[in-house]
Amino acid sequence: MSTLTEFEFIEKYLSTVPTSRSDVRMGIGDDAALVEVPKDQFLAITTDNLIEGRHFLPDTPAHALGYRLLAVNLSDLAAMGAEPAWASLSLTLPALETAWIDDFFQGFQKLANTYSVALIGGNTTQGACNLGLQLMGFVPKQQAIMRNGAKVGDKIVVTGTLGDAALALRYLRGQIGEIAPSQKEFLLQRLYYPTARVELGIGLRDHATAAIDISDGLAADLMHLLNASKVGAQINIDQLPCSPVLRALCKKADAVALALYQGDNYELCFTLPAEKLSLLQSLREEANVFCTVIGEIIAEQGLFAIEEGKAKTAILPVGWDHFMDRKT
Amino acid sequence: MSTLTEFEFIEKYLSTVPTSRSDVRMGIGDDAALVEVPKDQFLAITTDNLIEGRHFLPDTPAHALGYRLLAVNLSDLAAMGAEPAWASLSLTLPALETAWIDDFFQGFQKLANTYSVALIGGNTTQGACNLGLQLMGFVPKQQAIMRNGAKVGDKIVVTGTLGDAALALRYLRGQIGEIAPSQKEFLLQRLYYPTARVELGIGLRDHATAAIDISDGLAADLMHLLNASKVGAQINIDQLPCSPVLRALCKKADAVALALYQGDNYELCFTLPAEKLSLLQSLREEANVFCTVIGEIIAEQGLFAIEEGKAKTAILPVGWDHFMDRKT
Repeated sequence: MSTLTEFEFIEKYLSTVPTSRSDVRMGIGDDAALVEVPKDQFLAITTDNLIEGRHFLPDTPAHALGYRLLAVNLSDLAAMGAEPAWASLSLTLPALETAWIDDFFQGFQKLANTYSVALIGGNTTQGACNLGLQLMGFVPKQQAIMRNGAKVGDKIVVTGTLGDAALALRYLRGQIGEIAPSQKEFLLQRLYYPTARVELGIGLRDHATAAIDISDGLAADLMHLLNASKVGAQINIDQLPCSPVLRALCKKADAVALALYQGDNYELCFTLPAEKLSLLQSLREEANVFCTVIGEIIAEQGLFAIEEGKAKTAILPVGWDHFMDRKT
Repeated sequence: MSTLTEFEFIEKYLSTVPTSRSDVRMGIGDDAALVEVPKDQFLAITTDNLIEGRHFLPDTPAHALGYRLLAVNLSDLAAMGAEPAWASLSLTLPALETAWIDDFFQGFQKLANTYSVALIGGNTTQGACNLGLQLMGFVPKQQAIMRNGAKVGDKIVVTGTLGDAALALRYLRGQIGEIAPSQKEFLLQRLYYPTARVELGIGLRDHATAAIDISDGLAADLMHLLNASKVGAQINIDQLPCSPVLRALCKKADAVALALYQGDNYELCFTLPAEKLSLLQSLREEANVFCTVIGEIIAEQGLFAIEEGKAKTAILPVGWDHFMDRKT
């Protein structure tokens, strides 16, 4: 397998990345990148790392890793209502294998092109596989969506479906046996190529009172939003959005556990004043994403579940913790 | 040894970091940070990682690592003439040991306070030790210093002394035997606590035609500047700035090799029109850093050395490559 030195790598893969954005004065190739932030906008900054054996299995395709590294960061910007702009990449790899790198950058660039994200800098080092990305974008100063604005009576909405990525991991670990090719394809797509809800996040700017991206699990992430807003929530277990594939492969209690407690969804959870619920239809159509009302904000702090035929119960805000064992 | 979960860690160490800067609208605690870039300034962005066994020895004090991680990024901004503002931290650690983390953040914060750098975000994960930082700052749009502006006849200047950090590594590896306590203290200070030339970089804004920070070695980094500017250089080997400690412990040829080819200096190398040489005195005084003229820009591409009593020779632009063996 052919390998490259660091400088050859930087020259080949990074110096040639087109920075088609007019707001990039200096991209890769100097001590720092130089960019212009539009007037009257906040710069939104997020950073996430994917680590082998922790965030992905060792045989994950490089193409999926390049795509997913950008997607998980896009999801954070989406939760602020921000428009993505520039990315800076920190790659630590055991070796620079050209086939792997080509594949990785193809995956990255595919999604970067969708949102006109320019790769403006980064660094590469030899070591245990650690893929880091910092993503930056803009949001008009009065329109940023925070976690702390949820009000009593607001409706709680989530995008897409929950639990699919966790079920995909079970499949890859051989824990659910054989499944239909179409089911396998759906689950792996959800794990490897999560769809960041960028357009919906931007659409929510004037409407959502709070938002968070669901990376660690609905219960854990919603609890962060509730704590920041100093409110509580009651969610309807029967309303949790689960995909047909997940419903077909899991019993109800298991499906609920996956939806509530497992991460890697990269869907948005947001709160909307009840009188704005009628906007949901047009928002969903513009952003091409399914949205489900799962409950509402209450004054009593904590997260509570209601379910047909059962008593109201408190939900513990457990979720993915990168320093704990995965719960599946 | 007491350990923390990721969320306890984030809560304890990051949520409590004071963001005293008025340009930080949202620091740690949401999906992304929100900051304001001043009007008419470029945002300068750089990122660097320190990896155990590659950029530092396993028993390096955590305090030094926190300090150095910020210093190496400050040095990149200094080379652009930028004023530092915000940092985002990506820590991958085998475990979250509170004593180590306390020490690391004390080192980081000590230098952050000097330059009013606010820690505005980041992430933590379990894995092989990998310390990543992204640093952002500003530079007025017409005053950014690039690598590509050097002109024939410009003088080449370097700050401080070269080779000390490489000699410190030799000492730590037991390759130079016992040395005086004051020599040891000097060398370890240079390795563990490099001084980024932030004030000088800002002072050079209206004067330097090009600048680069010396992280990989003078020869390699100067060659990047020469290639970007499409010029060559002739440097005087007898003028290379070496510390008294390095001169005392190394023969001349060895001292020259350390100064030319070894990294981790975090000094600046910049070019100045000959008629501006008289400014050097006041610049040095303002920034409190020694500067040495080591040669000049020539039309013939390549890097050439002159040395008393020897013929002019070409210098190969070798230097630290993170995917090759260290040359000491």
